[in-house]
Amino acid sequence: MTREKELAIGLDLGGTFLKYALGTKDGELIISRKTPSRAHESMEMIFKVILDSIQELIDEADKMDAKVIAIGLGSPGAINFETGKQVGTTPNLPKWVDADIRGQIEGRFNIPTWADNDANVMAFAEARQGAAKGAAYMIALTLGTGIGGGILLNNEIYRGYNYAGAEIGHMSVDLNGKPCPCNNVGCIERYASATGIVETYCELKSIPIDGINTEYIFARIKEGEKEALETLKITANYLGFALASLANVFNPKVIVIGGGVSDAGDELVDEVWKVLSKHALGPNLIGLKLKRAQLGNEAGMVGAMCLAAEMYEKQQKN
Amino acid sequence: MTREKELAIGLDLGGTFLKYALGTKDGELIISRKTPSRAHESMEMIFKVILDSIQELIDEADKMDAKVIAIGLGSPGAINFETGKQVGTTPNLPKWVDADIRGQIEGRFNIPTWADNDANVMAFAEARQGAAKGAAYMIALTLGTGIGGGILLNNEIYRGYNYAGAEIGHMSVDLNGKPCPCNNVGCIERYASATGIVETYCELKSIPIDGINTEYIFARIKEGEKEALETLKITANYLGFALASLANVFNPKVIVIGGGVSDAGDELVDEVWKVLSKHALGPNLIGLKLKRAQLGNEAGMVGAMCLAAEMYEKQQKN
Repeated sequence: MTREKELAIGLDLGGTFLKYALGTKDGELIISRKTPSRAHESMEMIFKVILDSIQELIDEADKMDAKVIAIGLGSPGAINFETGKQVGTTPNLPKWVDADIRGQIEGRFNIPTWADNDANVMAFAEARQGAAKGAAYMIALTLGTGIGGGILLNNEIYRGYNYAGAEIGHMSVDLNGKPCPCNNVGCIERYASATGIVETYCELKSIPIDGINTEYIFARIKEGEKEALETLKITANYLGFALASLANVFNPKVIVIGGGVSDAGDELVDEVWKVLSKHALGPNLIGLKLKRAQLGNEAGMVGAMCLAAEMYEKQQKN
Repeated sequence: MTREKELAIGLDLGGTFLKYALGTKDGELIISRKTPSRAHESMEMIFKVILDSIQELIDEADKMDAKVIAIGLGSPGAINFETGKQVGTTPNLPKWVDADIRGQIEGRFNIPTWADNDANVMAFAEARQGAAKGAAYMIALTLGTGIGGGILLNNEIYRGYNYAGAEIGHMSVDLNGKPCPCNNVGCIERYASATGIVETYCELKSIPIDGINTEYIFARIKEGEKEALETLKITANYLGFALASLANVFNPKVIVIGGGVSDAGDELVDEVWKVLSKHALGPNLIGLKLKRAQLGNEAGMVGAMCLAAEMYEKQQKN
């Protein structure tokens, strides 16, 4: 019995919410929802939330006389893409340890499932449906509380030798810079994450950081406040230097900047491009585009959905 | 008519010499020679040197009743690996412009030919027959007058969107550092190349750079001279910071350091490891090895030979 429509499910697990969606194999969302991930209770509880959410979407697919052919999930931390298991621990989900994501989901629903790092699937979403649509070589940075990185090379997500690659936030461009909790010094996460930007601004103003956030700083930038403009320059300088090195080493076609910080508007991207284009090698700048992410909060779901659907199609061919 | 032995040819084109060798498909050299590359005369003359050298080796293969099944050539500059043509110009071979390497060699000998960047084939040699033998994820740096970089990902040479990737020498780890002729600031080439090391040492000693080379400095290091030891520390610090960022982003299994500077001995590699292992992320250090290159001056020939033989075998399978 072949159903008419084949659909996929994409999930985006975070410390606060699980976002989950039903959509087409190209990543167009049909239904998208979110629910508390209950991440601080227990791993069993997180899995219950995930499995219940998938069941909801399968029921919705049934009503449309459609079949869910693949499930994708993006999770914080390192994920072994071959086994679908999380590797070790991750700071924002302390109970989420060695989680057997594929095993639990396939065990319940018998639908092929893939799991990957959340920054990887967000990059994949931008490459398939967002700002880098069609690019086979692209790098995506998500500037939030921290900095997440995802890299697409030769049209595939790059994960590294043991799934620990693409940690772009912990590139150092200043060996005399601020120490980072990761043990490195001068990491761009210390300057270009929301946390880093607030810290820079409050240092320049000599004020405590309590109550200051990036929205406040971006509002001051629009008003032309001196310290806010200086903060923008420092942020863009660190980020631009890191992107110049990434351009020299990866020679990508598109670099995408997303996350809450990128919502500031085009000023940041414009400033970053000035620094990047001044410092990268000539041949590596040919055709290179720096763009703001387009998919916002949906990127995780879209990317997980697209990735699972593509992996499913590949499997069908073999 | 099938001959008994199938052999390959590897060539390594430099500003001063062409090195050329006949060997097995695994990159074991049977005959290796070098001849002036006559790089400053004309592109026709360089091609004459290359084609005559290949003819010599084909004649040698004939004497062994062997057949040359593939030819590989490593060249400075960006090489379009798909077409086998050099892209634009390269500083050390000013007459070598848009050279149609595959076209000229296949046109004359009708033997399948591949051309690639010289640092790429050197990395490939270390991955197949040298310090990183068996590693599918590795990075190689060649510390000479400048710094060359080659990257192997998922067991294949990584070239980037338009063959301009792996420019590791022009990663910046110090946005307040020395300006580089490439337009960047704080590039590791300014500190960890032979040129950079000599400059650092002479600055510390307040002496002119004329007549000072890395051999001299390394001899002073062995004697325990203060400024020489300080030079080693500065060099290792810049290099170690860059390798920590590369480990965080690429998550490789092996990093190989080669070139004249690495001949200094294990002190440099040991110092670099201290910095690298202090600053890279924990998961990215699991299983990571930092090693000195093993193939020395033969790496270019070995790598070009292995690469051509592997590409030939792949072609045969399709």
